[in-house]
Amino acid sequence: MFSVTFIIELLGTIAFAISGAFSAMQKRLDAFGVLVIAFITAIGGGTIRDVLIGYMPVSWMRDLNGPILITITAIFAILFKKYIKNFKVTLFLFDAVGLGLFTLIGIQKGIDAGLNHGVCIILGTITGCFGGVLRDILLNNIPLIFRKEIYATACIVGGVIYFGLFRLIDPNWAKVIAIAFICGIRILAVRYDLKLPVW
Amino acid sequence: MFSVTFIIELLGTIAFAISGAFSAMQKRLDAFGVLVIAFITAIGGGTIRDVLIGYMPVSWMRDLNGPILITITAIFAILFKKYIKNFKVTLFLFDAVGLGLFTLIGIQKGIDAGLNHGVCIILGTITGCFGGVLRDILLNNIPLIFRKEIYATACIVGGVIYFGLFRLIDPNWAKVIAIAFICGIRILAVRYDLKLPVW
Amino acid sequence: MFSVTFIIELLGTIAFAISGAFSAMQKRLDAFGVLVIAFITAIGGGTIRDVLIGYMPVSWMRDLNGPILITITAIFAILFKKYIKNFKVTLFLFDAVGLGLFTLIGIQKGIDAGLNHGVCIILGTITGCFGGVLRDILLNNIPLIFRKEIYATACIVGGVIYFGLFRLIDPNWAKVIAIAFICGIRILAVRYDLKLPVW
Repeated sequence: MFSVTFIIELLGTIAFAISGAFSAMQKRLDAFGVLVIAFITAIGGGTIRDVLIGYMPVSWMRDLNGPILITITAIFAILFKKYIKNFKVTLFLFDAVGLGLFTLIGIQKGIDAGLNHGVCIILGTITGCFGGVLRDILLNNIPLIFRKEIYATACIVGGVIYFGLFRLIDPNWAKVIAIAFICGIRILAVRYDLKLPVW
Repeated sequence: MFSVTFIIELLGTIAFAISGAFSAMQKRLDAFGVLVIAFITAIGGGTIRDVLIGYMPVSWMRDLNGPILITITAIFAILFKKYIKNFKVTLFLFDAVGLGLFTLIGIQKGIDAGLNHGVCIILGTITGCFGGVLRDILLNNIPLIFRKEIYATACIVGGVIYFGLFRLIDPNWAKVIAIAFICGIRILAVRYDLKLPVW
Repeated sequence: MFSVTFIIELLGTIAFAISGAFSAMQKRLDAFGVLVIAFITAIGGGTIRDVLIGYMPVSWMRDLNGPILITITAIFAILFKKYIKNFKVTLFLFDAVGLGLFTLIGIQKGIDAGLNHGVCIILGTITGCFGGVLRDILLNNIPLIFRKEIYATACIVGGVIYFGLFRLIDPNWAKVIAIAFICGIRILAVRYDLKLPVW
């Protein structure tokens, strides 16, 4: 049996890879460029996290499952471009779920490395968000994370909720609740166009 | 008692965080974006240095002092934006002092890692300058370091002075002199608009 | 006697350093900026590879040969700018040879680190291509690798050829053949303006 975590990580990776592939196609990159951007969007956040804590070779190098999954997803995104566009809402939901789960995966990696809670939340946020930051830098945009509705802030709130709960209740439940909060904040932010103040 | 190094590093971190926060506000990023850019400007150079020499988890992850100081500074920069602008010269001086000190901190880390002098000077320059480079990349500018008055060149000159002196006199005095040279070159360069030749 | 590998790596480093220096001069950077871009173009791909597999301090820090060679090359490129422009074809050939050799160096480092073949090919491609990617990001261009004739694709094809051959024939010959394929594909792609499809 596959664990729930495995399934959601799978869906999150697919969602991030599709998001990267679509951004690259909008900029009219060639097939290889689309694949690279999909790859970097999906594994970028985790790679930066692994490097910062010294977990090397980085995670996606330890087996070929990640690279193969992303390659298949990118090819799928190229071939079924029009078809997928109709699933925009579905994709957004995958992305929100992926954001929540990747944040908690990053927090867990920080805990395993013996880092303090504040740094763990930063690592979770990096894991969730910085694949998209690298995608935007490579495509020569100001990272959307700095422009759009509440995004990384949802990761930080989720991290605070996790550390608030994980001694009170079973840590796995604390994780599920934190992931639900991150997804929920993100979905509400997009649905109601919530933004942080700008100066 | 706090050491002189601690105090100047504190001031340098504050200066770099304010410089990042102001750049981000100029691009009209939201509060979270301002915080992230402040953070990356202040810790970016040291983080790249730590990763290149294999000192991980990287320095700012080892306690929460750095992240807390930068967060407070960024909030302060947002709240007192107009007020701080009047201190432009003060800030520039902090930045110059920070540049000098961070360069020597980077050189010391290179020496501790057993690297040769030339590489130590490169590491010092990275520590001093590359937080600003990351800030400019994330804000989608050509890094100012490549455009403006003598900046990184001051770090290189300071590093050469340090290694020229540190066997002749007490190494701590060699450091102080090198820091003073870096600050001085930087201040004179801005004061008299000195630039390297362009082709 | 110098080995063939040493000589071609030397030529590849020179070619990449000159390519970086020329790109920087086109953007009218000052002398220091030209040197930094030349340096990053020449060592960037290998540095990212070393960090991802945890080989630190990274390769170019272990002695001063690389930094000195790149500095001399950048000064040469600045002084003899007009003269070198006439050697455009020669430079392009150096770059193609460098691409092939750096790809195989990256693949070998991956094998030494015990990574699987697919990841080794990715590492080879990173070694060959990502110096140029960093150059383009720092100069605020969309990386040319994503825009132009077949480039990284040649590295991937070369990697596949290497792993197809290295059990059948002497691994050194497999390397030479793979390098020749990468150079050949790259030269044919530019000569006949071959591109991957764009969506």
